[in-house]
Amino acid sequence: MKSLNVGIIGYQFMGKAHSNAWLQAPKFFDMNVKPVLKVACGRRAEPLQAFADNWGWEEIETDWKKVVARDDIDIIDIAVPQHLHYEIALAAAKAGKHIFLEKPMAMTLEQARKMAAAANESGVTHYLNHNYRRCPAVRLARKLIDDGKIGDIYHWRGAYLQDWITDPDFPLTWHLQADKAGSGPHGDLNSHSVDLARYLVGDIAKVTAMTTRFIDERPLPDANAATFKGGSSGAGMGKVTVEDASFMTVMFENGALGSFEASRFATGRKNYNFFEIYGSKGSLIFNLERMNELQYFSKDDPDYAQGFRTILATEPVHDYIANWWPPGHVIGYEHEFVHAVVDFMDAIDSGKSISPDFNDGVKEMEILDAALESAASGRTVTL
Amino acid sequence: MKSLNVGIIGYQFMGKAHSNAWLQAPKFFDMNVKPVLKVACGRRAEPLQAFADNWGWEEIETDWKKVVARDDIDIIDIAVPQHLHYEIALAAAKAGKHIFLEKPMAMTLEQARKMAAAANESGVTHYLNHNYRRCPAVRLARKLIDDGKIGDIYHWRGAYLQDWITDPDFPLTWHLQADKAGSGPHGDLNSHSVDLARYLVGDIAKVTAMTTRFIDERPLPDANAATFKGGSSGAGMGKVTVEDASFMTVMFENGALGSFEASRFATGRKNYNFFEIYGSKGSLIFNLERMNELQYFSKDDPDYAQGFRTILATEPVHDYIANWWPPGHVIGYEHEFVHAVVDFMDAIDSGKSISPDFNDGVKEMEILDAALESAASGRTVTL
Amino acid sequence: MKSLNVGIIGYQFMGKAHSNAWLQAPKFFDMNVKPVLKVACGRRAEPLQAFADNWGWEEIETDWKKVVARDDIDIIDIAVPQHLHYEIALAAAKAGKHIFLEKPMAMTLEQARKMAAAANESGVTHYLNHNYRRCPAVRLARKLIDDGKIGDIYHWRGAYLQDWITDPDFPLTWHLQADKAGSGPHGDLNSHSVDLARYLVGDIAKVTAMTTRFIDERPLPDANAATFKGGSSGAGMGKVTVEDASFMTVMFENGALGSFEASRFATGRKNYNFFEIYGSKGSLIFNLERMNELQYFSKDDPDYAQGFRTILATEPVHDYIANWWPPGHVIGYEHEFVHAVVDFMDAIDSGKSISPDFNDGVKEMEILDAALESAASGRTVTL
Amino acid sequence: MKSLNVGIIGYQFMGKAHSNAWLQAPKFFDMNVKPVLKVACGRRAEPLQAFADNWGWEEIETDWKKVVARDDIDIIDIAVPQHLHYEIALAAAKAGKHIFLEKPMAMTLEQARKMAAAANESGVTHYLNHNYRRCPAVRLARKLIDDGKIGDIYHWRGAYLQDWITDPDFPLTWHLQADKAGSGPHGDLNSHSVDLARYLVGDIAKVTAMTTRFIDERPLPDANAATFKGGSSGAGMGKVTVEDASFMTVMFENGALGSFEASRFATGRKNYNFFEIYGSKGSLIFNLERMNELQYFSKDDPDYAQGFRTILATEPVHDYIANWWPPGHVIGYEHEFVHAVVDFMDAIDSGKSISPDFNDGVKEMEILDAALESAASGRTVTL
Repeated sequence: MKSLNVGIIGYQFMGKAHSNAWLQAPKFFDMNVKPVLKVACGRRAEPLQAFADNWGWEEIETDWKKVVARDDIDIIDIAVPQHLHYEIALAAAKAGKHIFLEKPMAMTLEQARKMAAAANESGVTHYLNHNYRRCPAVRLARKLIDDGKIGDIYHWRGAYLQDWITDPDFPLTWHLQADKAGSGPHGDLNSHSVDLARYLVGDIAKVTAMTTRFIDERPLPDANAATFKGGSSGAGMGKVTVEDASFMTVMFENGALGSFEASRFATGRKNYNFFEIYGSKGSLIFNLERMNELQYFSKDDPDYAQGFRTILATEPVHDYIANWWPPGHVIGYEHEFVHAVVDFMDAIDSGKSISPDFNDGVKEMEILDAALESAASGRTVTL
Repeated sequence: MKSLNVGIIGYQFMGKAHSNAWLQAPKFFDMNVKPVLKVACGRRAEPLQAFADNWGWEEIETDWKKVVARDDIDIIDIAVPQHLHYEIALAAAKAGKHIFLEKPMAMTLEQARKMAAAANESGVTHYLNHNYRRCPAVRLARKLIDDGKIGDIYHWRGAYLQDWITDPDFPLTWHLQADKAGSGPHGDLNSHSVDLARYLVGDIAKVTAMTTRFIDERPLPDANAATFKGGSSGAGMGKVTVEDASFMTVMFENGALGSFEASRFATGRKNYNFFEIYGSKGSLIFNLERMNELQYFSKDDPDYAQGFRTILATEPVHDYIANWWPPGHVIGYEHEFVHAVVDFMDAIDSGKSISPDFNDGVKEMEILDAALESAASGRTVTL
Repeated sequence: MKSLNVGIIGYQFMGKAHSNAWLQAPKFFDMNVKPVLKVACGRRAEPLQAFADNWGWEEIETDWKKVVARDDIDIIDIAVPQHLHYEIALAAAKAGKHIFLEKPMAMTLEQARKMAAAANESGVTHYLNHNYRRCPAVRLARKLIDDGKIGDIYHWRGAYLQDWITDPDFPLTWHLQADKAGSGPHGDLNSHSVDLARYLVGDIAKVTAMTTRFIDERPLPDANAATFKGGSSGAGMGKVTVEDASFMTVMFENGALGSFEASRFATGRKNYNFFEIYGSKGSLIFNLERMNELQYFSKDDPDYAQGFRTILATEPVHDYIANWWPPGHVIGYEHEFVHAVVDFMDAIDSGKSISPDFNDGVKEMEILDAALESAASGRTVTL
Repeated sequence: MKSLNVGIIGYQFMGKAHSNAWLQAPKFFDMNVKPVLKVACGRRAEPLQAFADNWGWEEIETDWKKVVARDDIDIIDIAVPQHLHYEIALAAAKAGKHIFLEKPMAMTLEQARKMAAAANESGVTHYLNHNYRRCPAVRLARKLIDDGKIGDIYHWRGAYLQDWITDPDFPLTWHLQADKAGSGPHGDLNSHSVDLARYLVGDIAKVTAMTTRFIDERPLPDANAATFKGGSSGAGMGKVTVEDASFMTVMFENGALGSFEASRFATGRKNYNFFEIYGSKGSLIFNLERMNELQYFSKDDPDYAQGFRTILATEPVHDYIANWWPPGHVIGYEHEFVHAVVDFMDAIDSGKSISPDFNDGVKEMEILDAALESAASGRTVTL
């Protein structure tokens, strides 16, 4: 049995999701190459050790450069906040490590291009973790498109809506500071939607956008809070420097007219990653809050019996499902990460690329950047 | 019992919908002033007579100017295609007739402004028939907003999607010719959505838009076809001169960020007039294909029991419903026209204005025009 | 143009629904024979006259026997409470009048059998108004079954749920008194479901049932209340003598196993006439609160794309729809009555029977009676 | 850190689900006592070893009696087919082992009673794994009931519908043989529903039932097939000896009227564990295929804004959720098993009982047995 050693950088939310995936993947899937949870890396040794013990990482290390430098590490899993991606990914690529990178890719398009260049040059397997591509219902959407069941695509209507910062007392966490997060829901949420649209519809030719902010100042956060929602420090207010919502209209290269609407102020929506695709032969609807389902309308149905059917994508014929449970036994959020690990390890083994990779990340950032440029200038931007 | 005499101009689809409304209104509602179906007007006497006989119009007349000139006519109902609205409305206003005008209002903003000026000056009651404002579920949306249940509005997400021309063999009917229809779904569908948005959210400050056309040429239509979908003439192809889809992004005056997406190429959507409204205290969802329902999310609910509730707006407490059937007995499309007639007659009786009126129509056309300007220039247009 | 004169007995809720149907039918449908609203009959002249004026009934009459005796009356429309059906229907049949009878058919099976015998013998057209058979979505269900799309039927799961008497202060109206209403939801609601099941699945071989009552005493009603929900008289309490809920399990003659669940205590359900049909090739779901929709699952779909599709039964290919509005423009509750009038007049004209007729009513009552017998005895009853 | 050693008997589907749960529980939840995956037991050493290696069971053993006899084993996890439960559970109880028992409990009520007696007498913690009690949305249903939000319960409408044996060529697996499976969907599916009903509504006073079989003979199965759906042996046909569907009507002790409908012939339903609860103050709807959601209707809402709200039970306030992912990030089927392990270990630690335990299993079997007696006799059976 072949195996490869993984070093993970980061041990917060994404550290947890990734660790679980490295662990679960070989238990549920037949893998040619298995991941070994070798070393976990973070700046504070104590919580890091607890994290490593919990998930079975064999060792800990507080300096990520040492992890990257180790000869026995084959894979670097980058699960830290976005502003740290660039330096680590560049070093990992140069060290010849395969890279499993959490999104968003980087702080700037310039960074992203350098990361992609380095990864391409080194010949490593590089993956940008837009996990939703590996949701079985999304894969089914892609299959129906590939099989010609949707025909020519006329429209993409994407939305990614949440509501976790509608409370004005929600503190000024790093997500709301441009120097740490790059942008708000535009980078955080639209990036996911753009990735899905590129996966399902294709590349984008031009874009126009508007962004806005509803709350300009928020309480400074309590640095010692257990969670990022942990409340204010009592030390006054600070300026929010990212947008609260971002709406884009785009023309795809294939002529489809589309929209992307991301907001953290959509009261009642928790993780509503939604899209509709309309084509000449059929249409599709997906909503991540019901991630086991795909809606599909087919003009091939008899004229008296057409309608959107709700496919429960939990049959053995659906991607990944045969390795989980029987039909109708739904899977959840973290399963997509498991699927990503399975496919990533398979890509390393086969020497083929995996999508989305860093080059996809660059294209996605070009679109997101063009949208911000449009929002600032009030003009449509051609890509 | 007071009554007023109605003269209707037009006897096609809208002639049917309006006639039914004039007839049904006093049967189901207590009205201070009842409409009398006095005269029906159209250019071809024979089908017009059959129409009049069917709906109980007392007389027929083939020259609309004679109808407008009659002293015994109190109300002019304009139910002809859009390019005829201007001349008739202007004459009716000058003649001091109350006007019940089917949408879209006019071919140009210039026309609309003149129509509004004439109607305002004459002091008649004027109404632009955006029927969806009188759907009980939409009225409930307005009530919830007025009662403060939604709070500050952050987002409007409107769509009006149909699919009746996805077939390339669908003929080049007047709907697809700019000189007859003005525009495509932008004027036909976005106009409804803009009216609803103005009713529920408020006025719009700036707009950016993209439009597109998927099919540039279509078979010339058979002029003798029984229905407008009646097939081609076999005489070759003609150029489509309106857009097939129009997507707008807008900033409302109150700061809400919104979108409007209209298309006749949304395979599977038949009359999908849809909107979502997100606010600081709650949210709303409406879909005309389920027009008896309104979805409502309230942050006032206990944190463990929040969710979008589906209100079946068929209770006696809901507007208009007490006059129809018991709870759970749904109403349909034409009921909205009946409600419009009831409110229109009441406006005449009380001397109050009714919304939307011609002034609303002007505001709506300003927005639609600005959007087309944006689509053409690639720039955001401020209103 | 042929026409037939109608005499209607009853002018309350059903008088309104029927009058509207007689009026609307020839306006929207091409009919060989048109109904003439000749005479309206009720016991109190004053409200009756108002009713007749509103709906256009030419004359009024306070003695139903005189109506039945008139030579110029062709059709008797029986729209009075159930306990009056027997005598009127018998007289009408003997007088050779066609009969349009509102359900439930009669107070007892014995009555129903005599009514059917009289109607059969006289050779008149007789119709029992289970209006839901003429909902386009229900007709589509029947078509799919007839076309073999559902295959052998394994299950019927019917429910008819309302909640209008959950309040203990709701007064003891006639609906809650066995001598006036016969039974509670068993006769009122299960009768509809049994009719639909007989229409869609077939006859029933055996039945077992349980019924119950949640509230035994209620305030005596105010006889002068404007509506039947008008409140109590303040004169004390009276005994409820019908059941509040009735659940049946049945075996159909074709081997399908089914259930019927009727209740007036299903909080949140307003007019939830619901059924599911499961077959060897496909399945169907219908809910009257969304009466324009039918859900359909087909095993003929590819294995990776199976799911319940929601058909919006508003296309021209769907029964009755071409006479109303374009696709996606939904119809409402009263449209079913219009369809019933159209089909009833056509049956008279063609000399064919219409379903459900009085013979169907007898079969339906046999089933309902058997269920009550089972509920009383605790034993399965074979039909 | 305290820990307890687990011995698992069985390594098929439920062995997989249980192993995953033992493994995941301490990684996501803070547990006072952690499970150690000590020994896995099955009859065939080779696949057993692979199973143990995959899930991290330290040792294997092919004789379950030796596992039960080991002093270092604290917990026996019984994950074998139903006909083996009795002997193992009895031995485990006598040996003083805590027991985690997969449902259905036993082949007969007699067995179940002896198992419960033995477990009670020994004082061990015993748990019958009706996993759906630990779905967060189901827990929320219980909370709403406990908090009085539903009021007096009028109705339970339960259904558990699947469609995996509608194909006549589906082979005669052990599930279809009475001597191995006890019964068909009655024991397999109705047992789950009865457990949920007892959890949410209460105990049952009387029951009437009908069962049926649609396919009497099926191909003999291929004993060497990789999966139980692996196809026929080609050796001819055998008799199906369990029912294909079972419908029950019940009266609860608290007066609620209810139904239970289980079938493996509900085409289109995969794992449709569904219930509706109607009460004097509110109502609830749950569907396992959308297990992260609970629908709730409240009469406390304003009369114009009542409706079933869809609660996405993925908020930190919902049971178990804070240990998984952020709001809107749904969980899946296996998470319920993890929750069961967490609660089971906590019960052992605290010395409190856990529900459902063996005594609940006895009550549940009494109901299921009474239903079969009713189906056979055609009489209502009082419990």
